[in-house]
Amino acid sequence: MNIARRPRVGHIAFLNCLPIYWGLARTGALLDVDLHRAPPDELSRRLVAGDLDIGPITLVEYLRHADDLLLIPDPAVAADGPVLSVNLVSKAPLDAIPAEPRVALASTSRTGVLLGRMLLEDRYGRKPAYTVTAPDLDSALRDADAAVLIGDEALQVFHDPAGHHVLDLAAEWKDWTGLPMVFAVWAVRRDYAEAHPGLVKDVHLAFRDSVQRSREEIDEVVASAARWEPFPPAALAEYFERLQFGLSERHLAGLREFASRASRYADIDPLRADGPEFFAALGEAREP
Amino acid sequence: MNIARRPRVGHIAFLNCLPIYWGLARTGALLDVDLHRAPPDELSRRLVAGDLDIGPITLVEYLRHADDLLLIPDPAVAADGPVLSVNLVSKAPLDAIPAEPRVALASTSRTGVLLGRMLLEDRYGRKPAYTVTAPDLDSALRDADAAVLIGDEALQVFHDPAGHHVLDLAAEWKDWTGLPMVFAVWAVRRDYAEAHPGLVKDVHLAFRDSVQRSREEIDEVVASAARWEPFPPAALAEYFERLQFGLSERHLAGLREFASRASRYADIDPLRADGPEFFAALGEAREP
Repeated sequence: MNIARRPRVGHIAFLNCLPIYWGLARTGALLDVDLHRAPPDELSRRLVAGDLDIGPITLVEYLRHADDLLLIPDPAVAADGPVLSVNLVSKAPLDAIPAEPRVALASTSRTGVLLGRMLLEDRYGRKPAYTVTAPDLDSALRDADAAVLIGDEALQVFHDPAGHHVLDLAAEWKDWTGLPMVFAVWAVRRDYAEAHPGLVKDVHLAFRDSVQRSREEIDEVVASAARWEPFPPAALAEYFERLQFGLSERHLAGLREFASRASRYADIDPLRADGPEFFAALGEAREP
Repeated sequence: MNIARRPRVGHIAFLNCLPIYWGLARTGALLDVDLHRAPPDELSRRLVAGDLDIGPITLVEYLRHADDLLLIPDPAVAADGPVLSVNLVSKAPLDAIPAEPRVALASTSRTGVLLGRMLLEDRYGRKPAYTVTAPDLDSALRDADAAVLIGDEALQVFHDPAGHHVLDLAAEWKDWTGLPMVFAVWAVRRDYAEAHPGLVKDVHLAFRDSVQRSREEIDEVVASAARWEPFPPAALAEYFERLQFGLSERHLAGLREFASRASRYADIDPLRADGPEFFAALGEAREP
């Protein structure tokens, strides 16, 4: 007999996280976690509040709460070049966007929004006036010159721009910095990791194996997604190919670069010089 | 491309429903449903409100809303004799309980509570005064002669009665009627079943296969549960052996008998003469 409880783990039930879930749903790994499916903002909030033990957190929120959290190297959501679903959508081409454009933030992803701001302000020298709108293109562009759009709606616009100009913000980030863009990381609360290192390791390995299996069975992942999602198989295959689900040294360099640039903005804490801090020693937790 | 959405399916994340989840977590079936895990009362409410398409519903709530729902023959939660976790717990043996006892309803299961009332009032001729208390034994018996207790707390008391008298209400029901007791059924909303019969059939088969697999791999199910639950493997094996997860003709006879007796109580509608109504023709949906 025991008094253990299953770790409370967050999962983003969006298309881009299907490869993370793929193996979990086939190995029985879900039997050993208390899985909470919710939108990314809600999961970030719950992890910070201590209502989850392990889960995804958008990079900007991780930076704000890094003292309470330890990173887990898999999974993550990143892209080394185009990601297809984090876009600046505009009526005019980039060089014809006004110097002080009206920009709609049709996204609840603080990281995607901040990336859009960085590029517009620091790379392209604009001085935008921002408004927050509903996360669909029509709402976003009704009274704006451009919109930051993320997720399935952004992927739709990428495939069917209908005369709009679509700037892939992860591709722009790579063009600007030479580095991958990390949108979300998975983290464990420091207090939980200290109390239950074995359980955290089990969850990490289950997630890593799940992503690995989705890579090996990518045709099945695509066929499964095509059954439910409004995209043809070729578009889904391209999307899953672009998405990256782990943190290499290059991804960490991209994360640090983003943190450094982000810290110039209000309400974003700088990453510690030796950050990010991982669960366990890198050598142990990040073994191949 | 398509505009399908995954069926919204409810799951009770309690120990007694682990065998229902077992196979779902190993076959990839979870990839084709939008699974909502919640306590049983919450799932009943959501199914009735139309916030779920398919899910478990406590028998009493099913009887109240049978016009909007179609039964699915698997899974169910039933017992043909002792169930171990739906108990009347008392300080004195049954025959020493006062004629007008104070009875605590330490349960949010309307079916378990009604079963307890039926037995106390109709079988044992008591005229109880009921109070609702927190679902733990100490709270329940503080100011009462007996308590209706269900779930893991009731199973704990069964194994460690600490001087209390424990009456297994499903065993009492069988002794009284000769029939199994059905505690919960799985149902689909009639409007959803008419619009998406193929999806309902897929979900039904996935659940049926899941329960079947848990029977074949019962030693693994017990070992998995023993990792997290405060019961030794032998107690878990006995519990899973007692629980029944499908509706045979005998179970339907038990369900009808309960409905008939329940309809004498306030706020419970009688079952239609030809009820319960199943999803699809019995011959199709209930093939072996």
